[in-house]
Amino acid sequence: MTVRHEVRVIFGDTDQMGIVYYANYYRYFEGARAAYLREQGRSYKDMHEWGVALPVVESHCKYLSPARYEDELLVHTEVTQIRGASLRFEYRITRGETLIVEGYSVHACVYPDTGRPRRIPPELKALLGD
Amino acid sequence: MTVRHEVRVIFGDTDQMGIVYYANYYRYFEGARAAYLREQGRSYKDMHEWGVALPVVESHCKYLSPARYEDELLVHTEVTQIRGASLRFEYRITRGETLIVEGYSVHACVYPDTGRPRRIPPELKALLGD
Amino acid sequence: MTVRHEVRVIFGDTDQMGIVYYANYYRYFEGARAAYLREQGRSYKDMHEWGVALPVVESHCKYLSPARYEDELLVHTEVTQIRGASLRFEYRITRGETLIVEGYSVHACVYPDTGRPRRIPPELKALLGD
Amino acid sequence: MTVRHEVRVIFGDTDQMGIVYYANYYRYFEGARAAYLREQGRSYKDMHEWGVALPVVESHCKYLSPARYEDELLVHTEVTQIRGASLRFEYRITRGETLIVEGYSVHACVYPDTGRPRRIPPELKALLGD
Repeated sequence: MTVRHEVRVIFGDTDQMGIVYYANYYRYFEGARAAYLREQGRSYKDMHEWGVALPVVESHCKYLSPARYEDELLVHTEVTQIRGASLRFEYRITRGETLIVEGYSVHACVYPDTGRPRRIPPELKALLGD
Repeated sequence: MTVRHEVRVIFGDTDQMGIVYYANYYRYFEGARAAYLREQGRSYKDMHEWGVALPVVESHCKYLSPARYEDELLVHTEVTQIRGASLRFEYRITRGETLIVEGYSVHACVYPDTGRPRRIPPELKALLGD
Repeated sequence: MTVRHEVRVIFGDTDQMGIVYYANYYRYFEGARAAYLREQGRSYKDMHEWGVALPVVESHCKYLSPARYEDELLVHTEVTQIRGASLRFEYRITRGETLIVEGYSVHACVYPDTGRPRRIPPELKALLGD
Repeated sequence: MTVRHEVRVIFGDTDQMGIVYYANYYRYFEGARAAYLREQGRSYKDMHEWGVALPVVESHCKYLSPARYEDELLVHTEVTQIRGASLRFEYRITRGETLIVEGYSVHACVYPDTGRPRRIPPELKALLGD
């Protein structure tokens, strides 16, 4: 399942090269992760109820074409891997037909209090489409 | 005329107090300024064609109630003052009935090349509803 | 008492105008507030021990001259007002002889748990030079 | 050659988990890249004179241990690969003995005007220690 999430580039996202600053795509990714869960009637807040936190343990981005001020971008998000105690989101950001960036984030599944790894609970697995 | 612009709070906008970091409301204000112009079929890009830049010369914000992760905020934007070579935007951000912040920004009207002050051109004045 | 705090402008602080984005000066102000307390052998973490939180209730900035990539800025910070349950920091940012911005922030003094206003404790007052 | 660059975590860098937001490490990386060049008496501004721009084409980070407010971090930066028209910076961020994150960025070497790839000029190669 792919969830699409729209982002509008603001001035504050650009840098003096006139393009979106490289770190800010990770902000767009994060907004898209939240949208992914909302799309299924959920939010990161539910995670807490389920005794789960999903800290990022790895992130990656390839920059293919620059995005600019006022661009309307589409972030396409998928969960591509669900392991015992980790999962992986993949993202592609497009403007029309143009591929802007692609990237991923890997998340550990941990107990919120102790930060120790735990198995992904079945409710979350179901939610993420596995 | 008041233009309403929606913002969804992301994780990256919050700080360790669990609320939106005070500087980030100015990012929301800026997104709302752009929305204000778009609403009238314009963008900051047009400014350039008109030989106008609108640098911020002053900004202000009062924090009345904290906004939190995943909040859906509404930024209400108005132009409240158009002088010879400056103008003022006012903003109120609400979540439902709750007033979160209110603020303003004052902008000089300048020539983009030299940065020297110039009168607001009539097209822009008309656009801003004066 | 004025505390001086150095900031180096990074690429990510600039926007497509080639200058520091207006909201980012508030980040510099905040870094300078922390430096102010450190200068006296304290940190915001101590506030917590004293049963105090100092949320920002108002912020303001005047932009006088643009700062650019790689600029070495100096933030000059003072506490200019200590009331019963609020205080005010004032900031000037300079690059050499040039005044870049000046601004202030007003903070409420509250109980961290309830968020209700409380008198500034004497230890904090002493610290802030009153 | 490894260049060390100090960063102090500000409030605005943290998120509601009470730790540094994952995207912000890329800001620290960028500040460290600039420091790397400064260490050799250069700056990104010189690049322009040499007819070179170094846009990021890939970035990556592994999060090993969280950093928190007021932490004094050390970013250790190295150039680990110089190819015909690209180069790679590697970063490790530590707090005392603790490894916080490690990551890298890959940069294309291009003509600033056209954005087309070009060979890394010898002056730059020498600078980067090859």
